[in-house]
Amino acid sequence: MSDLPSAIDIEEQGPREGFQIEPGPVATRDKIALIDALSATGLKRIQIASFVNTKLVPGWADAEAVVSAFTPKPGVKYTALFFNESGMKRAMAFHNKLTLEGYVALSASDAFLVKNMHRDRPAHMEAQRATIRSHQAAGVPINALLIMASFGCNFSGDVTPQQVVAAVQDGMDLAKEFGLTYEHVGIADSMGWATPARVSNVVGAVRERWPELTISLHLHDTRGLGIANAYEGLKLGVTKFDATVGGLGGCPFAAQPGAPGNIASEELVMLCQEMGIETGVDLDALIEAGRLAEKLIGHPLPSAALRAGSMDSFRRRVA
Amino acid sequence: MSDLPSAIDIEEQGPREGFQIEPGPVATRDKIALIDALSATGLKRIQIASFVNTKLVPGWADAEAVVSAFTPKPGVKYTALFFNESGMKRAMAFHNKLTLEGYVALSASDAFLVKNMHRDRPAHMEAQRATIRSHQAAGVPINALLIMASFGCNFSGDVTPQQVVAAVQDGMDLAKEFGLTYEHVGIADSMGWATPARVSNVVGAVRERWPELTISLHLHDTRGLGIANAYEGLKLGVTKFDATVGGLGGCPFAAQPGAPGNIASEELVMLCQEMGIETGVDLDALIEAGRLAEKLIGHPLPSAALRAGSMDSFRRRVA
Repeated sequence: MSDLPSAIDIEEQGPREGFQIEPGPVATRDKIALIDALSATGLKRIQIASFVNTKLVPGWADAEAVVSAFTPKPGVKYTALFFNESGMKRAMAFHNKLTLEGYVALSASDAFLVKNMHRDRPAHMEAQRATIRSHQAAGVPINALLIMASFGCNFSGDVTPQQVVAAVQDGMDLAKEFGLTYEHVGIADSMGWATPARVSNVVGAVRERWPELTISLHLHDTRGLGIANAYEGLKLGVTKFDATVGGLGGCPFAAQPGAPGNIASEELVMLCQEMGIETGVDLDALIEAGRLAEKLIGHPLPSAALRAGSMDSFRRRVA
Repeated sequence: MSDLPSAIDIEEQGPREGFQIEPGPVATRDKIALIDALSATGLKRIQIASFVNTKLVPGWADAEAVVSAFTPKPGVKYTALFFNESGMKRAMAFHNKLTLEGYVALSASDAFLVKNMHRDRPAHMEAQRATIRSHQAAGVPINALLIMASFGCNFSGDVTPQQVVAAVQDGMDLAKEFGLTYEHVGIADSMGWATPARVSNVVGAVRERWPELTISLHLHDTRGLGIANAYEGLKLGVTKFDATVGGLGGCPFAAQPGAPGNIASEELVMLCQEMGIETGVDLDALIEAGRLAEKLIGHPLPSAALRAGSMDSFRRRVA
C-alpha cells in the first residue's frame, strides 16, 4: 500500500453533469441548494453549470440564474463548462464568481468524434484551434488537455494505449503551436471501458512518454468497475480525480440507456478516507448532499454509499 | 498484474439471497426460471434455496417446490442453505439433486452474534458443536469455515485482523475436536466495511498463520467498494468468490435499509474476463439472467453491468 498518495484533489462535477442529463425539470432554487450544500463539504473545486445551447440542453437554460444566486464559499473554486465562444462570453459575465478556464478536448477514438461531433480528426483539430484562439483573444486560460474515450469506445471497440499517446501528442502539438501549458492531462473513460489493467497500461504509456505531466482521471461507473479503476489510479499515484455526488450524470452519447455515469464522489472519498488518503472532504456532509440531490431530482441515484452511510456514522453510534 | 490468478471459481448465491430478502412474493415458477437460466451460463456452483423457518422467511416457504422442479444441468453443483436439523432433513430429501454440505459459521465480531443470533461467543460455539454433531450423525459433510463480519461491524465498529485470526482459530479448534477438514475458509464482509487495504491485511494475517488454507471471499457492495475489494482479492491470488447475479440480496440484519447486498456476479465476471482471468461463465448469458431476475422481482437491481451490457456486446456491433 506504500505507493498510495497521501492526498488527492477531487473536482466535483455533479451539478453540471446531473442537471444536464436529468429528464425532469429541476427548479433553479434546487440547483442552487445543491451547490450551496456541496460548498459546505470541504470540496475545493465544483463545476456548477453549463453555458450551452439552451435548445439542445434545456436543463441548463437557467445557467445565468443559478450562477447569479449561489453563495460562493471562500477558498472554493467554481467552474463552468462551455463549448463555444457564445458560451464562454456568457460565463465571462460571472468572472467575479467563476474561475474561468478552458481546455483542449481530444479523443483517443476517431469514431467517438464522428458519432458525437460529426467531424473527423483533422476537422476536430481545426475546431480546437478555433477554440484556443477565441480563449486567447478573450484572455481565458487553457490549462488542461482532456482525452476522451481513453479505454474503449462503444462505436469502435477497444482503444489501445498507443491511441491515447497519439491523442496526447496531438494535444502537445497544439500546446507548442499556441504556447499553452497544461496543468494536467485528463484521461477520460467516457463510455466505461476501463479496467484496472487498462488504467495501469494507459497511465503507464502516457507517463513513459511525458514523465513531467500531471495526470487526472475522469472515470465512469458505466459497468460497475469505476471504483476498482479509481483504486488502481490511486495505487499508480494519481492525485487528481473527477467525480459526481451520488454518481449524478451519465453519458448521453453512449448508446446505453440508463447506465450509470461518473464515479460517485462520496464512494471515492470513502475509499480514500478509510485508507488514510486525505481529500479535505467531510464524508458525512457529502453523503447528505447526495441525499439532497436524490430528493431534488426525485429518484434514487446509483451510489451505494448514499443508502448505507459512512463507516464513521456507525462508529459514532457504537462509541 | 503478474500476481493475478489465471482462473477463479464463483459460487452464485443470487437465488437463495435474493428470494429471501425480496419483499414481494416471487412465484415458484419464476424462481425456477431464474435457476434454469443461471444453469445455462457456465456457472459451476449455484446456491438455489434456503430450507429455513417458513414463518420467519416466507420467501422460502416454497423451497421444496423449487428444488423439486428445477432442471439440474450435468456438471453444475446445486447447494441449499439450512440452519438447523429440521432444515437439513428437508434438504436431504433432495440428495439426488442437491450437493449437501454444511459449514461452521463464526463471527469476528461478538456484537454481531448478540444482535443477530442473541447469543454470546461461548453459546455460539456450543451451537456450532450441536450443528456439527447433527451433520455428522446424518452423514452430511462440513467442509467450510465461514467468518462473518471480518472487516467491521455496524454494532461494534472496526474489526481487526487479529479478531479474524481468533475466530479462525476457534474454527480450527472445532475442526480438531470433530475431525473436520475445511476445503476453504470464507472471509465475509457481512456489513460492507471492507476496503482494499483491509482485504489485504485480513487475508495476509490469516495466510501468515495458516499458509495451507484456501481462502474464499464473500463481499458485499454495501458502500460501493465491493468490486475494488474483489480486485484486491484477485491481486492477492484469491481464487474463490461468492457473488449474486444482479447484486441480488442484502443483509437484513445490518440496520441499513435499502443498502445493496452482494457484489454482482456479472461485474466480477466482467472484471475477470477483461483482465484475462478465466471464470468459465458466458458473461452475456449471465447479464441476460440478471435482466430476467429484475423482471421477475419487479424492480431494478443495483448492478450497473445490467444497464450497460458487456464490452463484448459492443465489440460485436463494431466488428
